[in-house]
Amino acid sequence: MSISEIKPGKVEFQGWIENLRDKKSMQFIVIRDLSGKIQLTVVKEEKPEIAAIFSSATLESTVKVTGTAVSNEYVKLGGIEVIPDSVEITSRAEALPIGPESSLDQRLDHRWIDLRCEKNQLLFQFQSYLIGAMREYLDNHGFTEIHTPKFIGTASESGAEVFEVKYFDRKAYLAQSPQFYKQMAMAAGFERIYEIAPCFRAEKSHTKKHATEFTSFDVEFSYINSFQDVMNLEAEMLAYGLAKTKEKYGDKVKEVFGVDIVVPTLPFPQMKLRDIYDELEARYGFTVPEEEKTDLTTEAERLCENLARDKFNHEFMFVTDYPPAKRAFYHMRKNGILQGYDLIWKGIEITSGAQREHRYEEICKNAQDKGLEKDVETYLQFFRYGMPPHGGFAIGVDRLTMLLLNMPTVKETQFLFRGPDRLTP
Amino acid sequence: MSISEIKPGKVEFQGWIENLRDKKSMQFIVIRDLSGKIQLTVVKEEKPEIAAIFSSATLESTVKVTGTAVSNEYVKLGGIEVIPDSVEITSRAEALPIGPESSLDQRLDHRWIDLRCEKNQLLFQFQSYLIGAMREYLDNHGFTEIHTPKFIGTASESGAEVFEVKYFDRKAYLAQSPQFYKQMAMAAGFERIYEIAPCFRAEKSHTKKHATEFTSFDVEFSYINSFQDVMNLEAEMLAYGLAKTKEKYGDKVKEVFGVDIVVPTLPFPQMKLRDIYDELEARYGFTVPEEEKTDLTTEAERLCENLARDKFNHEFMFVTDYPPAKRAFYHMRKNGILQGYDLIWKGIEITSGAQREHRYEEICKNAQDKGLEKDVETYLQFFRYGMPPHGGFAIGVDRLTMLLLNMPTVKETQFLFRGPDRLTP
Repeated sequence: MSISEIKPGKVEFQGWIENLRDKKSMQFIVIRDLSGKIQLTVVKEEKPEIAAIFSSATLESTVKVTGTAVSNEYVKLGGIEVIPDSVEITSRAEALPIGPESSLDQRLDHRWIDLRCEKNQLLFQFQSYLIGAMREYLDNHGFTEIHTPKFIGTASESGAEVFEVKYFDRKAYLAQSPQFYKQMAMAAGFERIYEIAPCFRAEKSHTKKHATEFTSFDVEFSYINSFQDVMNLEAEMLAYGLAKTKEKYGDKVKEVFGVDIVVPTLPFPQMKLRDIYDELEARYGFTVPEEEKTDLTTEAERLCENLARDKFNHEFMFVTDYPPAKRAFYHMRKNGILQGYDLIWKGIEITSGAQREHRYEEICKNAQDKGLEKDVETYLQFFRYGMPPHGGFAIGVDRLTMLLLNMPTVKETQFLFRGPDRLTP
Repeated sequence: MSISEIKPGKVEFQGWIENLRDKKSMQFIVIRDLSGKIQLTVVKEEKPEIAAIFSSATLESTVKVTGTAVSNEYVKLGGIEVIPDSVEITSRAEALPIGPESSLDQRLDHRWIDLRCEKNQLLFQFQSYLIGAMREYLDNHGFTEIHTPKFIGTASESGAEVFEVKYFDRKAYLAQSPQFYKQMAMAAGFERIYEIAPCFRAEKSHTKKHATEFTSFDVEFSYINSFQDVMNLEAEMLAYGLAKTKEKYGDKVKEVFGVDIVVPTLPFPQMKLRDIYDELEARYGFTVPEEEKTDLTTEAERLCENLARDKFNHEFMFVTDYPPAKRAFYHMRKNGILQGYDLIWKGIEITSGAQREHRYEEICKNAQDKGLEKDVETYLQFFRYGMPPHGGFAIGVDRLTMLLLNMPTVKETQFLFRGPDRLTP
């Protein structure tokens, strides 16, 4: 049984030794599992063998206990204590190599101990539940989960860097995103798909939001009429996921992280890039040189948090109408206007989405304009034999978690961070 | 709307041109989407512009239609036809490069077209749903989904081959399985976790069940009392997943694949390796030289299908009591007997599981016995600061799908197969 299930009567459970007070005639031991904590009480005279075990036990060792749980109003942990009949130390802990004063790097070096606390355990339960809720939204809307290959034959989609793999007597590369294969699924008539899987980026970035490997939540679907359909679906999915997660974890997250989960209203507000710069200047006196207005600068992105709040009373904001030159060649352009968007949350971009260019002649032209037609030769084949209009988006799971729980860096929202200087443990 | 939702009245939908009969005064066009098919009827004289569009249209082009659906008892497709008001060819298909006579390799070369048929679309919907059902079982039993890194710092767990990655100015490797990190989650007190993610194996195998990259369904959980707990959980999860999937897709799978999904009874039968050889000889006169009886030979594995059926009236059978020498060092040994198992289904191993060795001294000894203590140095650290008893298993998703649907090879149950000679598309 788990510790939270313990009621007066015979019990058998396992856990970690969280605390141990070895008094003259008594021992009080706190055992912890993921569900809660319980006190063991040992009268040394009555149970000398068990007392001997605990006298030499170390904190954070794991233990298996059988005994009798009894009510005791003096026990702080739920008014219940366990009088053990048998105790087995299942593994013995050495002194812990990290503590509250350890640096982030020291904690990451010993991540399996760093994770062994309520905050981190809650973080990953929360993340798992949120992703599950978003997946549920998609399942309820006729989406199919697919698993696309991470090995690719050519270093496509130049720009971001790709990792090279020694693949028998040749080279392979690791997919930076499932973008091309999500679109292949559209060419295959799969209509509505998603994938939650690792992506690999050989960027030497040392920021709070970059990693060389991260989990991406990718969605793609057919028969859209414009990229407004893509934004709508993404907003609905996020609102559904956040509402469900708040219901289950809202109180706990408030208590442990001090964060109020806000369920966003629908639709999310949206602004054109150019209008954002106008409004940032009018409202906050913020401006940048004209030539930088072709993209959101880091500072402008940050200020979008204020703008979304002040103008729309919202945490989220879609930014549209980026100049095509700066964006991926597979985003559709219509009359020179990009049919794509970024979603900004709390001053950071959490997702890019778009209607994709589905017409063979147009996608070839876009690739040529960027000098990519050789790199993406295989991809271009997907468009030759019928390709429905489609669009999609991708969300970085670790970044989403970081923003949601106000964590300082994705290093703490990945189970194990991977960066240019970190490959262990 | 999707085609299956079409009812008499105004309609707007998209799809693929599946068939086109261009008669003297009439055109009959069949449009297909994932949900079904519908007939468009064009009276040329009444709609000359639309007739002109279809006269030059090619099969497998995609199309967007508005019009009026009307009942017509002479129409075979559901007694309904659509009289179009407007038609737009959204993408124009060239002549298809593969057909019914194409070889498997030709089909894989053009996988996005190969997938564009009822059988393959059903296969992946089915796979997605089955995995979702097994995930649901775990979610209902307190499991958390985690995402472990695929980049690893050392080429650990020698034996199977690992892929090498150029990682900036050093080397990294791709994880063959999340085994070590699943166990790290146990050291972190996560208690019950699963992961569904790609694994990478640099094996030059060209069999129907091997791939260099495949999707693995991995489970690990703490506080077990023996590997019987692991087998029980796996059997329950599979039975739950198969029952739920049969309910939704059973009839369709029977119709398209000719396969009856059998929901297995619990518990699954189990036999010791040694007893299997005795019984194979007694029942079927099958034997192998004594020295080969330390493992299941391919032929013995195949015959386990008959044995499970004849002896237990069951499709599944757990095989236990392998000699430790042949098995991974992280499986627990007790009195010289391995605390692990294989699960055989339809004559093929679909999963390995075990109670893991959680005691630091013992796991070090096991690693030394195999000469691995240097390779797995980081992994061994996980056991020094408290590690609860735990166990787990892994299922190959593509192999499971292959067996369930009687497909000839995993090349046809992976969205995109990856093998020593295949990296495209």
